[in-house]
Amino acid sequence: GRARDFGLITGILPTGKWNAITDVPGVSVGHKTLLSGDSVRTGVTVILPHQDNIFQQKVPAAVYVGNGFGKSMGLSQIEELGNLETPIALTNTLSAPTVANGLLDYMLGLPGNENVRSVNSVVGETNDGYLNDIRGRHVAPNDVSDALRTASSGPVAEGNVGAGTGTRALGFKGGIGTASRILPPSKGGYTVGVLVQSNFGGVLQINGAPVGRELHNFYMMEEGPYVADGSCMIIIATDAPLSARNLKRLARRSYLAFGAVGSFSSNGSGDYSIAFSVHPDTFIPHTSKEPVHMTPDLRNDELSPLFLAVLEATEEAIYNSLFMAADMEGHRGHVVKALPIDRTLEILKKYRALHQDTLPKASPK
Amino acid sequence: GRARDFGLITGILPTGKWNAITDVPGVSVGHKTLLSGDSVRTGVTVILPHQDNIFQQKVPAAVYVGNGFGKSMGLSQIEELGNLETPIALTNTLSAPTVANGLLDYMLGLPGNENVRSVNSVVGETNDGYLNDIRGRHVAPNDVSDALRTASSGPVAEGNVGAGTGTRALGFKGGIGTASRILPPSKGGYTVGVLVQSNFGGVLQINGAPVGRELHNFYMMEEGPYVADGSCMIIIATDAPLSARNLKRLARRSYLAFGAVGSFSSNGSGDYSIAFSVHPDTFIPHTSKEPVHMTPDLRNDELSPLFLAVLEATEEAIYNSLFMAADMEGHRGHVVKALPIDRTLEILKKYRALHQDTLPKASPK
Amino acid sequence: GRARDFGLITGILPTGKWNAITDVPGVSVGHKTLLSGDSVRTGVTVILPHQDNIFQQKVPAAVYVGNGFGKSMGLSQIEELGNLETPIALTNTLSAPTVANGLLDYMLGLPGNENVRSVNSVVGETNDGYLNDIRGRHVAPNDVSDALRTASSGPVAEGNVGAGTGTRALGFKGGIGTASRILPPSKGGYTVGVLVQSNFGGVLQINGAPVGRELHNFYMMEEGPYVADGSCMIIIATDAPLSARNLKRLARRSYLAFGAVGSFSSNGSGDYSIAFSVHPDTFIPHTSKEPVHMTPDLRNDELSPLFLAVLEATEEAIYNSLFMAADMEGHRGHVVKALPIDRTLEILKKYRALHQDTLPKASPK
Amino acid sequence: GRARDFGLITGILPTGKWNAITDVPGVSVGHKTLLSGDSVRTGVTVILPHQDNIFQQKVPAAVYVGNGFGKSMGLSQIEELGNLETPIALTNTLSAPTVANGLLDYMLGLPGNENVRSVNSVVGETNDGYLNDIRGRHVAPNDVSDALRTASSGPVAEGNVGAGTGTRALGFKGGIGTASRILPPSKGGYTVGVLVQSNFGGVLQINGAPVGRELHNFYMMEEGPYVADGSCMIIIATDAPLSARNLKRLARRSYLAFGAVGSFSSNGSGDYSIAFSVHPDTFIPHTSKEPVHMTPDLRNDELSPLFLAVLEATEEAIYNSLFMAADMEGHRGHVVKALPIDRTLEILKKYRALHQDTLPKASPK
Repeated sequence: GRARDFGLITGILPTGKWNAITDVPGVSVGHKTLLSGDSVRTGVTVILPHQDNIFQQKVPAAVYVGNGFGKSMGLSQIEELGNLETPIALTNTLSAPTVANGLLDYMLGLPGNENVRSVNSVVGETNDGYLNDIRGRHVAPNDVSDALRTASSGPVAEGNVGAGTGTRALGFKGGIGTASRILPPSKGGYTVGVLVQSNFGGVLQINGAPVGRELHNFYMMEEGPYVADGSCMIIIATDAPLSARNLKRLARRSYLAFGAVGSFSSNGSGDYSIAFSVHPDTFIPHTSKEPVHMTPDLRNDELSPLFLAVLEATEEAIYNSLFMAADMEGHRGHVVKALPIDRTLEILKKYRALHQDTLPKASPK
Repeated sequence: GRARDFGLITGILPTGKWNAITDVPGVSVGHKTLLSGDSVRTGVTVILPHQDNIFQQKVPAAVYVGNGFGKSMGLSQIEELGNLETPIALTNTLSAPTVANGLLDYMLGLPGNENVRSVNSVVGETNDGYLNDIRGRHVAPNDVSDALRTASSGPVAEGNVGAGTGTRALGFKGGIGTASRILPPSKGGYTVGVLVQSNFGGVLQINGAPVGRELHNFYMMEEGPYVADGSCMIIIATDAPLSARNLKRLARRSYLAFGAVGSFSSNGSGDYSIAFSVHPDTFIPHTSKEPVHMTPDLRNDELSPLFLAVLEATEEAIYNSLFMAADMEGHRGHVVKALPIDRTLEILKKYRALHQDTLPKASPK
Repeated sequence: GRARDFGLITGILPTGKWNAITDVPGVSVGHKTLLSGDSVRTGVTVILPHQDNIFQQKVPAAVYVGNGFGKSMGLSQIEELGNLETPIALTNTLSAPTVANGLLDYMLGLPGNENVRSVNSVVGETNDGYLNDIRGRHVAPNDVSDALRTASSGPVAEGNVGAGTGTRALGFKGGIGTASRILPPSKGGYTVGVLVQSNFGGVLQINGAPVGRELHNFYMMEEGPYVADGSCMIIIATDAPLSARNLKRLARRSYLAFGAVGSFSSNGSGDYSIAFSVHPDTFIPHTSKEPVHMTPDLRNDELSPLFLAVLEATEEAIYNSLFMAADMEGHRGHVVKALPIDRTLEILKKYRALHQDTLPKASPK
Repeated sequence: GRARDFGLITGILPTGKWNAITDVPGVSVGHKTLLSGDSVRTGVTVILPHQDNIFQQKVPAAVYVGNGFGKSMGLSQIEELGNLETPIALTNTLSAPTVANGLLDYMLGLPGNENVRSVNSVVGETNDGYLNDIRGRHVAPNDVSDALRTASSGPVAEGNVGAGTGTRALGFKGGIGTASRILPPSKGGYTVGVLVQSNFGGVLQINGAPVGRELHNFYMMEEGPYVADGSCMIIIATDAPLSARNLKRLARRSYLAFGAVGSFSSNGSGDYSIAFSVHPDTFIPHTSKEPVHMTPDLRNDELSPLFLAVLEATEEAIYNSLFMAADMEGHRGHVVKALPIDRTLEILKKYRALHQDTLPKASPK
């Protein structure tokens, strides 16, 4: 079950219907999971901002680099032009170029893109090389199209799926996780959705409870080979009308979730956040007769509720990636255990970290 | 008492002797507190990396801007040249230029600086205008020299002192706070010290316990005029030998402490971190006959323990700023209450947030 | 006379009426020149985006730091919030804080700002310490109000005035210079105006002619103490409707003018560019009942003509700062000679750098 | 012939032996040129900092993004870690992922890299889609190994070779160009080498002479479809001992060359600079028993001569890319003419842009 299914309620804001990035209207997610033989434990996850040709209808977007020890692709163009023109694809470190090629196949082949000669493929990655034979580069370009073809709105598969198939996080099996938040009507009623590919370390705390220490599984403990490095990709979607500048501010807040879950964004962790808006009036047509684009942007002083929503949703998405993962054996017989749910719940109970929805919640006038 | 005096032990690393930025060898701190009449509630805090003429012996330094809604001065030169050539001074928003002038008075007057015609004064600020008559700009240049003259190593006054005199944080009275961490010998044995000027908002959690919600005092609650904006200045010192590039990475980790204490770095919060090294071999003489500077830098893959230390020390420095603050009445009769210690301790007890030093700690081989 | 008065026509685009930053509708410029005794050779220059209370009607703005060895103030807030809320003031390095205080005096005193408790004063500076007794810090806060009070549209005084009184550039007397460009109607017909405070070095070329080498006055020549350091402040105004993101792109292009005039932005040169738009629909009211701001932005692919305009206007503004400067004697008897106009014109003639308006010009369909 | 063969001498500093990036000790360059049928006009160019396993002996490096409308890969890790761990490969826009895969093949296969599971492939690109059937993605991974295998020091092929096979610049055929500069012994005697892949537009000037206008071939002229967009990759090598921070400052100066040659870095031009040092004492072993790395760095105030060298070498490398290119017919019968050398030389003569080595040169004491 997901974190919330066990009574683990994070924060003061309500979730969307699916408590997923797909609560943001139009956003869809697809996975291609590669599990074969002893050592292929990897995959591809794609996030589509909308269902049209995104090259022809770009969305405003921004990037925040928490720790740049990673191989994400397509970042500088997002920063310069303030938009995203492909779906975002996540995969393993050494397959990033192949996945970029898969995105190119898809984009160049879309009806309407026959004359396109320049596409900024956006690919994120984390390193699943402990469980996966990463040097084998087992992802193929058509795995991207498979993920794209099966992308859907609604519930999102989490844990050991897609790009999260072989990852590990905070001492346990990591993977894909997602969550969402809805702002109160007086703050605009916007939705924020987050999806993470978790693969990083630290001293795990869950809703403030020191789970990593209680379970004797944390960075710098005496016993065993805890690995703090890894990486985390964080994708943030919202239907709030935002400029690239304000989306960058949202992206930066997702980084704070590391502090919330007990991580310090280790040297070897490539931690990247990409945020985009799906508010239709912010879309940027690839070509236009109008040289000037009228576009809505939330005033700066309206941003704080969204910042809170990003922090909460990112934190919960990380928890979901842990709760929904399962034990996995892979490359060279390596085994990574999932978070032990029963013992974890006991710890959460001990620290009263469950059912915090009985505490006061957001209820602004 | 400070957080730790009440059994509030944050993190897995031990503190230095004073649990203060002054545990970093050579670092000193001075305050000038301005309390007068009904409405002067402000001051100046200075941090000196070493006791010599810092213009003549610059230290490597870096800046991270979490949220740039602030008026900090001197940042671009630190970024470009990778060093700090004055003490760092903190004050209120509208007094920043006056304090910069005070720093200039001091620097230009130092023996050896007779021919200096360019000085990069580094000044941080937060807005204390709720309790302080900030428009009155009551800080004078000589308040800076007073703070510098009385700067000392050893214990650091916290709470309503110096630049923290009139600030508020997380729904309560904020102020100056400090803390430190010592790395295990196997990780270099370095010290990291942090000093904060806390003046920001959020949904306060302390060692994971939802104190803000329990006390009905948090951002976006139903009742009352909670103010999330404010700002936070974070100063980080270490004796680890670090380049400006790696110091920037340290500075960035201090931002994660917002997530740990339940803040989201609101729109109106000017959140800046400045990190410097006091390892003597990293000092940069203003003039030198040697065109090439041999300088030590920790290898990238040795940085993670320092990142953890920065996160822990920043989090605890924020707690100390709250625990050590006292109720204050000021400008226009505004009153800000300090964190109610007794009730807070009860909450911390309820959530088992106290005495976590009985849990496993850092003990790497 | 100005460069153009001598037939020195730079680039392919036409100028505005005044060939000045004041060709941008609503922009005004004021100077306060401080010349007294043997060694006071400094001043203040202010640029106002419009004539209303700019705190209440902010303008979108952006900063580009070419070389951050400088003490400019207010940059991080421009970057974060994407706007400018005070006039821009220029002065000498050590007077920057005093000028910031002068700006605060002005802003806090404006009708409508009675409750303002936070203002981001934007101050640029270059170091005039060779001709000016800079350590004396002779600028007073009311010099700022004097400059503001006398600010006007129309022709702009150049050379040894205001913040350019004591500067030197490219081996000669520098100072204030300005220029403008008008885009063809098919490219929007927008105006770009630039004002520079020139105080930097290099190997001067003018419209491509190697003037510095011909005059035996350039960086790294055999004879004499050529000083490459200094700094350059570049202010860019336009009436094109632009977001902060696109304004940053404009600001970055002004840096290319260094390459055009033979400079390499030396280590000691603090080179900063600040760009803003005065298109009224881009203005950002300080308070508003509307949480969403509809704002026009030129499409990315419409930007190139503006980039060219910025480059040309910056280059010509630098030439104007040299042509309009006069010999000056100052601090400690130091003398800086102006560009020798007659010899320079001979050189320009020799290299056919004059009257290039007979060559093909911009004439897009 | 190259620019200098015709008497076109740019700047005041002398060149290295080959006037190429390969004058920097240890640096080698390889090309794979793909010319086939009517429409394959592309290739790969690689630059190797040294001849050892660069993953095991990384070099300090930095990136500057002039205009981020491009798909360069590997930038964020260079920025974060301050080093380069693969050769740099250049190619066309849509082949960047394939070339990244080619780099991975090579790196993973190097002796000593058997256990490497993470490699930051650095790939730059420009768009050759006018002459080349770019959508066909004709570059194969083994083209990278071919380029690497044939890489050599000494003279570098320029013009229509490797990644420059199908590019165009400033209205003419562009391509690969290179140049170098040597500092005077009193400034350290260091070498700076630059290699460009030119593919951008503007209003061409050569050594200050308005060649584009004289030849009726420039941006915004009346006639014809001048294309300003394109991109430029700039690779900078030096044997000066520099930190990543100072290498970034070098990289930024290469951007000034756009101003020198009459370009404004158009909206559609992805302009990236990557700088690295080959001073052996700056090399960073992938693994080390020593946690602290002693490393030499030129003092900040020694950087200016290198900045000048970067500007001059970049400018001349661009000229070489034009002078060494040849007419090309390609995709869809498109033809791009090379710079007409005879007419250009006449223009350069007219403006006395040739033989400027008779003017005073750098000769510092």
